[in-house]
Parts: sequence; C-alpha cells; structure tokens
Amino acid sequence: MNRCEGISFLCSTLRNGTKMRINGQPYRTIFLDKDGWTVRIIDQTKLPHKFEIVSLQTVDDVALAIKTMMVRGAPLIGATGAYGMCLAMRHNPDDTNLNSAYRALIDSRPTAVNLRWALNQMRKMLQEAPQNDRALLAYKMAFSICAEDVKTNREIGEHGRKLIIDLAKTKPQGSEINILTHCNAGWLATVDWGTATAPIYAAHDAGIPIHVWVDETRPRNQGAALTAFELGQHGVPHTVIADNTGGHLMQTGQVDACIVGTDRTTASGVVINKIGTYLKALAAKDNRIPFYVALPSSTIDWEISDNEVGEIIEERSPTEVTHIQGMTEDGHIVRVQLTPDSTTAANYAFDVTPANLVTGLITERGIAEPSVAALASMFPEQEHPTTRNP
Amino acid sequence: MNRCEGISFLCSTLRNGTKMRINGQPYRTIFLDKDGWTVRIIDQTKLPHKFEIVSLQTVDDVALAIKTMMVRGAPLIGATGAYGMCLAMRHNPDDTNLNSAYRALIDSRPTAVNLRWALNQMRKMLQEAPQNDRALLAYKMAFSICAEDVKTNREIGEHGRKLIIDLAKTKPQGSEINILTHCNAGWLATVDWGTATAPIYAAHDAGIPIHVWVDETRPRNQGAALTAFELGQHGVPHTVIADNTGGHLMQTGQVDACIVGTDRTTASGVVINKIGTYLKALAAKDNRIPFYVALPSSTIDWEISDNEVGEIIEERSPTEVTHIQGMTEDGHIVRVQLTPDSTTAANYAFDVTPANLVTGLITERGIAEPSVAALASMFPEQEHPTTRNP
Repeated sequence: MNRCEGISFLCSTLRNGTKMRINGQPYRTIFLDKDGWTVRIIDQTKLPHKFEIVSLQTVDDVALAIKTMMVRGAPLIGATGAYGMCLAMRHNPDDTNLNSAYRALIDSRPTAVNLRWALNQMRKMLQEAPQNDRALLAYKMAFSICAEDVKTNREIGEHGRKLIIDLAKTKPQGSEINILTHCNAGWLATVDWGTATAPIYAAHDAGIPIHVWVDETRPRNQGAALTAFELGQHGVPHTVIADNTGGHLMQTGQVDACIVGTDRTTASGVVINKIGTYLKALAAKDNRIPFYVALPSSTIDWEISDNEVGEIIEERSPTEVTHIQGMTEDGHIVRVQLTPDSTTAANYAFDVTPANLVTGLITERGIAEPSVAALASMFPEQEHPTTRNP
Repeated sequence: MNRCEGISFLCSTLRNGTKMRINGQPYRTIFLDKDGWTVRIIDQTKLPHKFEIVSLQTVDDVALAIKTMMVRGAPLIGATGAYGMCLAMRHNPDDTNLNSAYRALIDSRPTAVNLRWALNQMRKMLQEAPQNDRALLAYKMAFSICAEDVKTNREIGEHGRKLIIDLAKTKPQGSEINILTHCNAGWLATVDWGTATAPIYAAHDAGIPIHVWVDETRPRNQGAALTAFELGQHGVPHTVIADNTGGHLMQTGQVDACIVGTDRTTASGVVINKIGTYLKALAAKDNRIPFYVALPSSTIDWEISDNEVGEIIEERSPTEVTHIQGMTEDGHIVRVQLTPDSTTAANYAFDVTPANLVTGLITERGIAEPSVAALASMFPEQEHPTTRNP
C-alpha cells in the first residue's frame, strides 16, 4: 500500500471554491477525505430522507456505488469512475490491475457515455505513465475532470443568470421570478452547481428573488427527492408539484420560464430529456413562456440525425412505475406497491422535444438558438451535419 | 324500527342489468344487501390492494363513508347520499330526523354539487309524503337516481362505442385500438359503467380489441389505483404509465384516441377536469390525435362563463403530493413521505382545457362539437348563453 504523497493539496483544493451548501456547509457531491485518498460521496438512494456520506476505498466500492445509484447523473458518474481508477492505482499500479479496474468500472453502468469517456481518458494517460507515478497522476486527472465539470456548470450558470435578470426587468421591481424545472439536472447530478439549476443558484446567490416549481418527475421522483433536497439545503424557495400541474401554472401566469437539462441534444437542437419534458415544452409554447435547456456542450451529439433520436429512448423496469420508495411515519425507508397485482406498466425514460418548442440552449459558451446554424456558429470546431462531406 | 316491506324487489332489481364484473361476478358500486335495506359499498380507500365490501346501516355510516372517500366520484357520491336519506327514514321518518339527516349528509362533502342535487331531490319529495310512506318512497327514489345514472352512462358508452368502431376502420383489420385515459372517470366513480370508461367497456364487450393507457394521475393516483383495478377486473387489456409518458406515446403513434371525463364543462365546451388533462390535450392536438371528453349532460354548467372557470380550481392539501399510499411487501397499506421534511407542495386539483383542443363531447344524446351552437342544438331545452335575455 503506497501512501499517495503530494495529493493532500488536491484534497483541500477540491474542497475550496465550492458553491453549494448542505446543512450550512459548502459541499461538492464527490470529494476526498482528510486522509488525502479516500473518496467520499453522498448516498443519493437515501435522499431526501437521510443525508449520509459514504467512503469509497476500493474499485469494488466505486463499482457498487455506481451500480446501486448511490451516485447518478452523467457528470458525477464520470467523476466517480475516474476516482475508481485512482483507488485502483493506489492499491496496485500494474497493468493487470489497471485493466481489470477499467473493466469493473465500465461494467458498473455499461450505457453511461460519460463514464466510458472518463475511464478511457484515465486509462490512456495511465498506460503511458511509469507505474510509480500512476497513483498521483490518476488523482490529478480525476481532480481535473471534476474541475472541468464545475467550470462548465459555472459558465452555464453565468449565462443563465443574465437571462433571469432580463426576465426580472420585464416584471415589477422586486417581483419573484418563477422558474419551472423537471427532473434533477442539479448539483446532485454533477460535481457542483448542476446544469439546469446552475442559472437558478447563480441568480439566487446574486440576490434575485427566485422561486422554483419542482416537477416531482415520476416515475423515479428525482424532482421531489433530489431537486427539492438540494434547493432546500441551499435556501432557494421552491414548491414541489405533481407532473400534471405545470400546464395549469403556465395558463395562470405563475411561471416566468422553464429551465430543464438534457441527456442528449442533436446538432439542430432537438432535445432528449427525461420523460415529460415534451409536455411542459408544449404548454410553454401554448402560453408564450420561454423554454430553455441548459447543457454542457459535451451532451450535444453532433452525429445523430433528428430522425434517429426516437430510437434511443430507453425502456426501464415497470416496477419503477408500479412501486415507489418513501419514508414511513416511523422513519423507515420502504418501497410500496401502487397498482393492482395483475397490472403491468410501461416505463419510457426519455422523450423528444422538437427544436421549435425550445427558446434557447444555455451552454458554457452562451445561449444558442436551437438550430444547426446557431450551434455551428457557437461551436465552429465541430464537424456539423451541413458542413460534412457527402 | 319499521321494516321496509316491499323494497326487497328493488334490491334484486338493483343487482340485475349490471355490466361490470369483479372477480368474475357482476357488481354495481352501490347495492342493497339481501336484507333489503342495508346499503353496501366498496371501500375504495383500500383499492387496488384490497377489495372490501362495507355495510352502511345509519346516516352516520354514510356520512363517514363519503367524508373518508370510501366512495368518490360525483354520481356515486350522489347515489350514496340518497341512500343515506333512506336509512334515516327507515330509522325514524319524522321531519326532525329528515332535516338532521339532510344536514349531516350535505356536511360530509360540502362542495359536491351532485350530492347536494340528490339530497335536495330526496328532501323535497319526502317532505311532501306521509311519514309512514317515507322509507319506501326514499328507497324507490334512491333506486331511480341510480338507474338514471346507469342509463346515462350506457348511452354514453353506446355513442362512444360507435366512435371506436369508426377508429378501428382506419386501421388494418384486427389491430388493437389504443385509448389513453386520465384519472378515474370509471365504473368506480359512478353506479355502473363509468363515463370515460363507458365507451371502452362497450367496445370491449362488443369484441373490439382495445388496449388502454392508464395515466397514474398523481397526486391521488386514481388511474393507477382505481382505473387499473376496474379495467383489470373486467378483463380489459391496459398498461399503467406515469403522467409524463402520454406525450411520447402520442409522438410515436401508440395512441389512437384520448377519452377523459370532466368535473364541469361550460356551455361552449371548455373542459374542467383532473389536473394534467390540459397537457394531454395539447399533445393530442400536436400529434393530430382525437381528444374526446365523455360526460353526462348534468355536468354541463350552462351558467358559468369561460372567463370564470379558472377561479373555481380547488387547491387541496399539499400532503397529497408530499405523501403517497401503497402496499408494503408484507401486505400492509401505509402512507410514505416522498419529499424532504422542509419542502412544501402545491396541489391544484383541476385544470382547464380550452375547447379548441377538444375533438368532441360524448354525451348521452350523442357526440357534440365543443361549441355553443352544437351544445345548444343538442340540448335545446337549456337556456343558452347566446339565447339568454340581456
């Protein structure tokens, strides 16, 4: 067991510059212990009822944390996977262990694009490094992956904050700005700030009176459980609503803008996001309310055509619809059945929101119209559909 | 205690002609015991997990059944209230008891228009009758209120069945017809058949291959708990979905028509129904899918103006959003908390669907366009907004 000298500075750095608060303390969703190497995460399966920090000391710990969804959200899964490689290299930096750790971590969530990306980055760098340096280099790169996520989200927050200030100017001074959001594209899905929540936190911290309508987001209830938790901890006024409610709120002038995240967005601005996003976008359009999608440009899929997006909608277990987890009166977290024994359920995880329902895409470089031209102009280094050779 | 001679025939009549099945047996949602006077209902608070028949023998029993939502749905609440008056008259037919029973029943659900209507009918008739005849007359009138509801729903079912046959003609022969419904405007909300479900049962019983997408209908989950239960018992193929899912199903060609109920509809066809109806109507319009509202004409409010409808949206307890009831693995029905302790929720019970999103209103007289002219032509005996004197 080689003690990683020199990385305790990373530990303290990782704890600084953080924005979000839990119980009044600044936190990131993943950080190093005081020992300088143990990885600590929040067990998100216990939220919102219990806030428990879990220590991860082995690759197996990390793989289990990803598999059991203690951590979730593409950026956070990627960061956690990267730290899994650190723990592996600290234990034994040889090639065999490097490859078996890589495999174990990939297998913990085979469909997670961001996890695969982070692990590939880590493996490539580590394979080329001397074995004695691997542990320290791994921690440095994992830290840098986290820092990059935080920087991107902070920039999204900055662009979104300006947008909210512009909204505030259209209302009587001091009026509350009401934002509706869906699912959890929040701090808990990233290393810090979140994507859809970044503009909200930035505006709140700048003193703009903001209130958030939180779609509970059935079937997995990420809104009621996670978004409500993190907004509450950071002190942002918010109200949970059934997913059915947003239309009525928009009809009655109680929503100033919608801001949601995305799992994948096409080069022309078609948005794949949590099931139900499309219905809110329709209501926003019908009531002339701006509908924004906040996204790191890494979630733009420059290759996929708009016709193909419907084919990648994941179907998940019906039990996520027929059952739900909650806390009993005596404080136990239990799963209860909601439907008759013989009833089946369908569980489509995502839906597709056409670009014509989207007002703008809030990226780390600014706010783009959802069109090939606007995205191509904002990200000229990408090979775009219209500029591709036949 | 006067034994009500002569009403046992009503008891047997009430059990005949019924359509819906539970565990293979024909049932109505309210019926008389073999003793000829005890009122029996299904305890709907235990559904879908337990099917329990409860006996009501006093006015207090009935008031409690309404208050605790053992019975729900406007027509069924009205029928139950009417039988409450029967039990009162059987116990003591004097004027004092008549009036105190009326008051106790009205107070069990002060906002229920149908309950008030049924009780007013009962009281008026009973006040004019000799005390000795009151019990028998009460049972006769309660029976007739039930019979009228069943007749209306059967007619709605008949008109809706034809519509579903027309839909089937547009598809390859033998194709499944997929209907999406929201909430429970079903058998369990009425005495028999239901309103939105009446066309579904009629089509199914006529051998048309039908499949129903059942919105779970948060926050009270009437779809997952009640609609799924009754469709399952009657053998209608169905699948429960999170309320977020309907838009995606419509985009991907998996819905042939939507049929929902309504709590109140204006003379121009603006529909007030369970929260979330508006979002489904928007998606139906966006995907050119017919959106029907099934309603007994008694739910048309000929007086209210379209501008006033938003003002009557009831706000219910936030705990219906923050908590949910279900069955644990060991068969206990418990309520669990879904949100963080400090989080509040908003709970609007209904929303407003503009007439331009509605394809047609399926009434007991036929299918009307949602317009003043079409409804006036179908119900010429009503005083219509455009024909009213200034």
